[in-house]
Amino acid sequence: MVGIGDDAAVVATSGDAVITTDMLMEGVDFEPGTDPRRVGRKSLAVNLSDLAAMAAEPVTAFAAVALPRSGGRAIAEQLYEGLLALAEEFQITLAGGDTNSWNGPLVISVTAVGRVTTRGPLLRSGARPGDVLLVTGELGGSILGHHFDFQPRVREALWLHAAAELHAGIDVSDGLTLDLARLLAASGCGAVLDLDQIPVSDAARQLAADRADGISAREHALSDGEDFELVIAAPPAEADRLLAAAPPVRLTRIGHCVARPGLWQAARDGNWEPLLPHGYEHQLS
Amino acid sequence: MVGIGDDAAVVATSGDAVITTDMLMEGVDFEPGTDPRRVGRKSLAVNLSDLAAMAAEPVTAFAAVALPRSGGRAIAEQLYEGLLALAEEFQITLAGGDTNSWNGPLVISVTAVGRVTTRGPLLRSGARPGDVLLVTGELGGSILGHHFDFQPRVREALWLHAAAELHAGIDVSDGLTLDLARLLAASGCGAVLDLDQIPVSDAARQLAADRADGISAREHALSDGEDFELVIAAPPAEADRLLAAAPPVRLTRIGHCVARPGLWQAARDGNWEPLLPHGYEHQLS
Repeated sequence: MVGIGDDAAVVATSGDAVITTDMLMEGVDFEPGTDPRRVGRKSLAVNLSDLAAMAAEPVTAFAAVALPRSGGRAIAEQLYEGLLALAEEFQITLAGGDTNSWNGPLVISVTAVGRVTTRGPLLRSGARPGDVLLVTGELGGSILGHHFDFQPRVREALWLHAAAELHAGIDVSDGLTLDLARLLAASGCGAVLDLDQIPVSDAARQLAADRADGISAREHALSDGEDFELVIAAPPAEADRLLAAAPPVRLTRIGHCVARPGLWQAARDGNWEPLLPHGYEHQLS
Repeated sequence: MVGIGDDAAVVATSGDAVITTDMLMEGVDFEPGTDPRRVGRKSLAVNLSDLAAMAAEPVTAFAAVALPRSGGRAIAEQLYEGLLALAEEFQITLAGGDTNSWNGPLVISVTAVGRVTTRGPLLRSGARPGDVLLVTGELGGSILGHHFDFQPRVREALWLHAAAELHAGIDVSDGLTLDLARLLAASGCGAVLDLDQIPVSDAARQLAADRADGISAREHALSDGEDFELVIAAPPAEADRLLAAAPPVRLTRIGHCVARPGLWQAARDGNWEPLLPHGYEHQLS
């Protein structure tokens, strides 16, 4: 493999390459003054989360950076310190990049490359009516810190993908209901959620208590972005097997897929009520 | 292949993938107010130039964009219009991306993926003393427009790589002498340039005439950035063969590699005089 120092990197993926790219911008994805190590870590972590959502093994990553001219060298060092520490944790290399300076805010764009396992990639489009919906970890309130410190669910995804036949997967980057709606749209089916089963994080509870704005902890869990947990659709027998098999992460059954398109919640009377997908969407005019 | 719409793209590279990334920033790589179509085209073109420098065949590309919130939608459409037109020209797809908005200037970061030919990748590190140095096209003055309109030398690189045994290659992104010095450093040798042979572009002549700042057209050719031409090192017999074989682009012999490290110019008395590498370097403090 040819790494940093040539015009491009040569990456041996031995099969299909899985590639994803994500950009973080100062003032949007992190506040000005944030420790650049946290920014560097997050810039890779969000991409690893996308690879996890495809159940791909990370191989390498590339970083393109726009650094403020003043203090840029120190920022760059800390940025790469955070990025490389996470890369080491997942035993991947940083194969190349593009380091720039300007009179603007910090921007970092990372592209991560993975490879599919023998099971093939886990897509958004494979969910079928009857599939059970599972979610890893706990949801909501990531703004309190989890959006920097989260562990991308790479190992968990590989474990799940190896342990059972999964139909579809996505990572929660913009909010559970919003990302789930994307999976459902890609799969051409709907889902009924059992809201009592949504795993609500302590951070979501704290946020609801602190803000006292009428948004409940569960609503935070349903719609906050940047949880970076995985939502998986699997046939019932496979889901049962996973839940019984001591998975390496908390795994919760939150609902099931149905033929009727849309996102629904089971009401007490047994009927379905519409659940509006809600989460973070970029605004453009 | 799975493209836009899943968490990541699955790219069949059938062998080693060649991957490169480059970021363009408003106010650095293009002036505010530049037609976004030109920016979009350039963002892909600079990456294709890197693939050309590796003599790799382009396969696909990814774009991450930070758009100004106000007017962002129109900018995005024009940006992708320019990018996709060039992608079509080189018969590659845009397999994914990340579109963001913020209150900052326009930033676009493209990652291009290629595959090596049966000849393998063309590296910077293979030049040997005795090799002839060849350059495609004409150099200098790209600031007058060529830095937007250049044709990445993809087809030319593939032709050269197939027609002869090449030892090393690089694209001129920061200036001929600066990029050549990088090739030489990677190869562990030096080079003597015949300055009379440098192919000087009309734009370099025009720039020298317009600016009247004492910088000659040839100096522009030696040090201006963003020519995106290729510099190739090849054994003499191979270089002769290429020059005789009606290459699809102007190809000029500009010097040869020597064992003595450094960059030199042949003086009239037969001696070598040092030639300082000069070009565009990002400033960080």
